[in-house]
Formats: sequence, structure tokens, C-alpha cells
Amino acid sequence: MSPSASEDAGPGTWGRPTVRVGLLGCGNVGSALARLLLTDAGRIAERTGVALELVKVAVRSASKERDVPGVERLITTDPFGVVRDPAIDVVVEVMGGISPARDLVLEALRSGKPVVSANKELLANHGAELWDAAAAAGVDLLFEASVAGGVPLIRALRESLAGERIHRVMGIVNGTTNYILTRMAASGATYQEALAEAQSQGFAERDPTADVEGYDAAAKAAILANVAFGAKVVAGDVYREGISHVSGQDIEAARRLGFVIKLLAVVEAGEDGALGVRVHPAMVPQAHPLASVSDSYNAVFIEGETVGQLMLLGRGAGGPPTASAVLGDLVDAAHNLTVKGVARKLELREVPIRPIDDLRCAYYLSLFVADRSGVLSAISGALGRHNVSVRSMEQDAPEPERGVAGPSRPDPGRPEPAREAQAHLVFVTHPAFERDMQACLHELRRLDTVRRIGSLVRVVGP
Amino acid sequence: MSPSASEDAGPGTWGRPTVRVGLLGCGNVGSALARLLLTDAGRIAERTGVALELVKVAVRSASKERDVPGVERLITTDPFGVVRDPAIDVVVEVMGGISPARDLVLEALRSGKPVVSANKELLANHGAELWDAAAAAGVDLLFEASVAGGVPLIRALRESLAGERIHRVMGIVNGTTNYILTRMAASGATYQEALAEAQSQGFAERDPTADVEGYDAAAKAAILANVAFGAKVVAGDVYREGISHVSGQDIEAARRLGFVIKLLAVVEAGEDGALGVRVHPAMVPQAHPLASVSDSYNAVFIEGETVGQLMLLGRGAGGPPTASAVLGDLVDAAHNLTVKGVARKLELREVPIRPIDDLRCAYYLSLFVADRSGVLSAISGALGRHNVSVRSMEQDAPEPERGVAGPSRPDPGRPEPAREAQAHLVFVTHPAFERDMQACLHELRRLDTVRRIGSLVRVVGP
Repeated sequence: MSPSASEDAGPGTWGRPTVRVGLLGCGNVGSALARLLLTDAGRIAERTGVALELVKVAVRSASKERDVPGVERLITTDPFGVVRDPAIDVVVEVMGGISPARDLVLEALRSGKPVVSANKELLANHGAELWDAAAAAGVDLLFEASVAGGVPLIRALRESLAGERIHRVMGIVNGTTNYILTRMAASGATYQEALAEAQSQGFAERDPTADVEGYDAAAKAAILANVAFGAKVVAGDVYREGISHVSGQDIEAARRLGFVIKLLAVVEAGEDGALGVRVHPAMVPQAHPLASVSDSYNAVFIEGETVGQLMLLGRGAGGPPTASAVLGDLVDAAHNLTVKGVARKLELREVPIRPIDDLRCAYYLSLFVADRSGVLSAISGALGRHNVSVRSMEQDAPEPERGVAGPSRPDPGRPEPAREAQAHLVFVTHPAFERDMQACLHELRRLDTVRRIGSLVRVVGP
Repeated sequence: MSPSASEDAGPGTWGRPTVRVGLLGCGNVGSALARLLLTDAGRIAERTGVALELVKVAVRSASKERDVPGVERLITTDPFGVVRDPAIDVVVEVMGGISPARDLVLEALRSGKPVVSANKELLANHGAELWDAAAAAGVDLLFEASVAGGVPLIRALRESLAGERIHRVMGIVNGTTNYILTRMAASGATYQEALAEAQSQGFAERDPTADVEGYDAAAKAAILANVAFGAKVVAGDVYREGISHVSGQDIEAARRLGFVIKLLAVVEAGEDGALGVRVHPAMVPQAHPLASVSDSYNAVFIEGETVGQLMLLGRGAGGPPTASAVLGDLVDAAHNLTVKGVARKLELREVPIRPIDDLRCAYYLSLFVADRSGVLSAISGALGRHNVSVRSMEQDAPEPERGVAGPSRPDPGRPEPAREAQAHLVFVTHPAFERDMQACLHELRRLDTVRRIGSLVRVVGP
């Protein structure tokens, strides 16, 4: 807290030390936060003992209309001016993106200002540099809102579970994909229909790539690896698959087999000290707490040596829930300023990342094959040669009418081959190594009886 | 941290400032914590930056055998000696009960030692006094483990949601009763059978009163009211009903109607500023996240103005999960000592407690009545006279053979009255005031066609 601020105890400060806040960005989250600070500061001060005063709001376009009473007089288009303003005690960065956010956050930290950020992209790519800068300056860098929005997950991992030996963290950390998968399971909608519905409901962007291909979840997985394991992991280290290849047939087969398909961010410690960090669709047993997390909710399931199993669930996105998480951090940073304390540093270690090839898990495998005698024997042979043992197999009714269906439908302009009845086989395997499974897929693709590989989905194990 | 401790940086301290811990109590939680501190301190220090050294463990009986390697040399039977030892920096109180725990905690706080406590009974009855003492001395009093064991709930409410306008907190905070209700629902066991099973599994005490009659949950409800609403509430302020009157028939009827019966601790802000604080069995809609919390798991569902809906789920009891929560607090307290910071104070305000009579909710009402014409009309008349409107009614098949069943079975020594066919009616009402419902029950009891009131269970509303 700057001395000038601490000495100010006018009527606007509710008799508490005032901490002056500069806000970078005024989109969904920024405007929800600005509204809280401008309309509810008295109650917040009474409840928390910290008086927060919003003094500047940096935006890209000053002319844009904002539905936040009183914000106009605070608007500036100079974010560096906010960071450098000696009257500002704490900086909140909710502008997103790497540039100029990275430079702004670094400059704020180096000049001794605590920073609260909701910027998963920035943290997942430059976290170590930022946390080092915060530690060097002895100020807070708090980022609760960067993963799972309003869910108080980061604080749980950094503080409550600070001494815990964490085995695995599995999260539904992307609301868009969870909404799509929930709609597909509930209504039998195709992926494209569910995506269109998500877009019309405002749960998906017009270009949904970052969500549906798992890039957003991968950034959050990197942050989870930082916080839960103290591991120096960046977004690019994360193995990533999205949900665009998940079909209604997969979801229906999963249901029959006792599973729900969810896009999971998984971070797990191996016995060898290597860390698995991956994002992909997964078969979650119906009785698992993550299976019932529906719609755009987020949830993170934590398994620890001493604490056992924990799950935290809530709204992972949206302006107000995310602003609530930012506010929690802001109160924390302001409290630390007023008592001259400091949050714990986040020190990251280099940890070997386990290649996806070394993953060992059970698999769900869906194959479309020619409905001929000898097919199953050829496939079983290929599985066996690659040390993949089958736990169960089921065959859908042959589909002579529908021919080849689904996303890899052949070019409609190409003359269709003579139709042969097609069978749909669904296998669930015993645990196998990913490298073996991939080698097996390679062989299966070359069998002339295998029309196409439908899906390969990893099964969540104990 | 005492100066003597901070200057010690021998090989046993992993090059970090050492914080010396005195432990009061070595039962399930205490011995799990002692094991962590004695066997895993190096890893904890590396991960958290805080070296914790367990130096004394106060117990009632020094001769009892404890399965914790290296603890024997630390054992003392003088808890005040631990609190007064100038070489001890932080006190952990996991002995339970009010006396001597209250005197010990007060003395520790007043002498400037932070305290971590898992003692719900103490906090629910003397919390205000203890938090005042902590604030006066400028030291931490942390108590994550006092509600819902390993679930990082208190920190979420005190810190992440510090600025949040909380509307309602509903918790499954007693694992014993949740286990019993889960078993009754899953296997059709009676209450007595499920209780016996819980006892044989170690989930219930031989005298289960504190759990099954809701006293344990009521203490936790008081602490939730303290933390989530800053309200000065003690255990005795909490309206309380247990589960011993919940029958298999109620659970089955609930299932048919789309509900699950759970023992809930509810704290909710009324529009008039009064706080409702109550513990009772409740009908939870099957789609509600609390409905799928089974066995001995605990979960707390939080509804806030900005954050929306949150749920935190995990192990609510047992030595290791509770010790994990204590360890999280201990790291926090130790960190605050080393940086000379201090946790936020908990300041409680007097808040009017809403009398249970003023509660307004929907009800499930089960009645055993004579199977005569005119009965339903008489009952409907009574409900209507008390402004209780029926949403649905269903009638089980008459039970001429079974006669009066369930917990209020008449004294078997008494000559049985002439048997008349009996019908079981189940009503679900629209929201009504508790006072009206109770007046209605009073009238129903006096109708000669009503054999007995089966159950009255409140329905969780939006």
C-alpha cells in the first residue's frame, strides 16, 4: 500500500486502510469486477477489513459503451500508465493474451506492485518468469481465476494442500466442451448440432478451436501442474486432443458400458518421478464424481496421499464467477499489503514430463469393419501382437444401409465403392501402453477389413 | 517464530527457517499428523518453504502404545507445559472437548503463539472469545479441520469468497449419518440395521447420539455461520433434528418422488437480514450435486451472489484427511510467522437468528391413517385451514397385515387395538411457513383417523 493511500481515511474509505486498484481490461470479467468494486465496496470493506478503491481502468477502445455505473471517469487507453501510476497499489490484469499483458505484469511486479491475473494463456506460457519476478520483488502474484473460474481451486492447492503429496489432479476445466458433451449425451445431438447449440447459447465462440481442440484446457493443465506439483510445465508440454472426433455412437456406447465421456485435463505423478500432463476425452465411470458434472460447470478432482479424494465444483467461466475469484485474490493481496505480509512464493522445479507413449491405461476402441467372417480374428491377432488384451467386445447391428458414416465420410464427389455390410465393433481393453496401442492402430489401419478407426478414448483408472 | 528457533539452521532443518510445533492430543488426527511431521518433514519443507519440527506431544496417557515411529521421546502428559514452552512456536490442538482445550488455546494465543485447532465443539461454543484473543495478540487461529475434515472449505469461505455476498451454505457435514442414509437407500436396510453396519465399519460410535441426533452437524453449522456470514452464532443457536426417525418408507417414497434424503446443515441469509441456521433431514432433488454425495463423504454447497453455485466434496473425517487439513493450516501459520504476516481476523457481528417457525419451505409429510372414507377430506381440511397447499399426494397400498410399523410401534406389552386397515399417505406441499405446518400437525394428531405422523421432512428449494 502506498503511504499516500494508507494515510487517506476519508468518508469514502469506510474508516479502513484504502488499497487503490488499477484494472487492465474491461471485458466480461473486468466489467463484472468493476461493478463489484464501484457498487459494493462498502460491504466488501466491512466484511473483509480491506477498503478497495478502483482508480483506473485501461481498455483498448475508450468509446465502447460499458454497463458499469461510474466507470467512464476511470477509463484510460494507456495500460502502462496504470502500471506506472504511483497512486495505484495493486494491478488486476484481465485483458488476456500474451502481449502486452506480459510486459505489463512484469513491470508491475518489478515496481513492487502485487498483481492479480486471470490470464491462463500468460501464466501457462510465462508463469515461471512471472513467479520469479514476484518472488524477487517480494510481492504477490495471484491467479485463482485462471483455472476453473470461480472454483477456489488454486488457493486449495497452494495453501490447504501445500504439504500434501498429490498423486493426481483430473479436471473438467473447459465449460464449452463439457456443455457440448452433456448435450450430446442428453439429447443424442451430433457434435456439430451440440456445438451450434453451444454457440447460440453463448457457451462457445464463433471460432471454437481453442475450446474444442483442447488448447484452453491444456493451458489450464500446465497451471495445475505448476501449482499442484511445483513442476515447471508450460502449455506446449501438454499432450492434447480435443473432442471434435467424439461421435454420438461413442457416447452411446460409453453409456451402455457404464461410462460418461468428458474432456479431462490430467496431471499425475508417476512412480518414476516423471509427470504425466495431458488433455483428452476420457471414459469416466458413471459412479465417479466427475461423471455427474454437467453443462458448463467445471470441476477438479484431486487425489492425495493423506487427504484422499477431493472434488471442487462450480462455474468455470462467465464474468461474475470469474470476477468473484479475482476479488478473493484482490482482498488477499490488499490484506497482505496492509499487514506487510506476502503470499507464499511459487517455486517451480524442472520435472521430467512423461511422454504420452509411456502412458499405461485401459482404452475404449471403436472400429468400423467389413462384416465378413475372419474379421474379428484378424483384429484380435493385431491386438495380441501388440500386447493389448481385450476386456470386452461388443458388436452393433451391421449397417448395410448407412454405409460409411461420421466425420471421415469419403469425399462425396468420389464414386462410392460397391457397398458391403459394415459392422461396428467396440472394444474395451485391459491396461496397455500407449505406444503399443498406437502401433496396433497403425497395423489395424492397414488391414483391408478395417474401414476406419472410429475413436480411441482413454479410460480413467483408479 | 521464536528467535532461538529462527537462528537454528542445522542439517535437520533443510536450510529453511524452522518452526517448532507443540501438539496437544494424539488420537486419530494427532497421530496421523505426528506421522506426517516425523516422517515426511523434508519433503514438506522442500515443497512449502517451511521446515516444521514436532517437539512435544501432550497426551492423557503416556503409557498407551502409538504406531508413530519416533513419537515416544516427544510425549508429555503436561499440556500446559507445551503451551508455555518458549521453544514452541505454534500449538496444534486436536484433543477435542471444551476443557482443558479452551484454557490451553486461550493461553497459547495470549502468549503470542498461533494455534491450529480441529476442535469443532470448542469453536462452535467459544469461537468469538478465541478469535478475539487471536486478534488481540495479532496471531493466527486457524481451524480448517473443524468442519468437513480434509475439504478445504474454511479457507475458501474466509479467503476466496471473502468479498462474496453469500446467500446460502448447505452441507453434508456428518459422515456417519450420510453413511447410514446411503446404506438405507442402497440396500433397503432399516435405520437400526444401517446404524449397526456403520458401527461395525467404524463409521459410528458405540453411542451414536452426537452424530445421529445432529449435534455434531449443529456445531459445524455454527462454525459455517461464523465463517460464511461473519455471524456470532453458537451451537446452541442452531435448530436441530437428527435422522433416527427417518424410515425406509420415507427413503423409498423420496426416491419415487425424485429426491434423496440427506442430513443437511443449512445456513441462509433471509431478506430481512436474519440468519437461518438449522440441521435436519432434507429432501434433496436427485439432480442436485449434494444428492450424489454418498457413503461417509462430506460436501458443502455454497450459493453466492457473484460466484454462483459451488460445491466442495471430500473426506470429512478420519485421521489422515483431517491431519492433511491441519497440516495446511500449520504451513500457513508457520509461513505467517516467518514473514511476520498474520492471517485475516475473523470479526463476528451479532445477527438475528431466524426462528424455525419463520422458515418457509415445501414439506414432505407422511401420515398413517385409518383406511376409511372421508379421511382424505379431513386431512385436506386441516392442511387448508393452516394455509398449507398440497402439491402432490400418493397413497401406498393399504397395509392390513402389517398394522402400525416403524419406530413409534406401540409398546408390545400393551394389548393391541382391534386391527383396521391402515393407509399410508405421502404429501408434498407447496412452500408453507413452519409455524403453519406445525399447527397443522398438531391438529392432525388430534384427528381420530390419523394413526400417527410418519415423518415431516423439509424439501430443499431453489
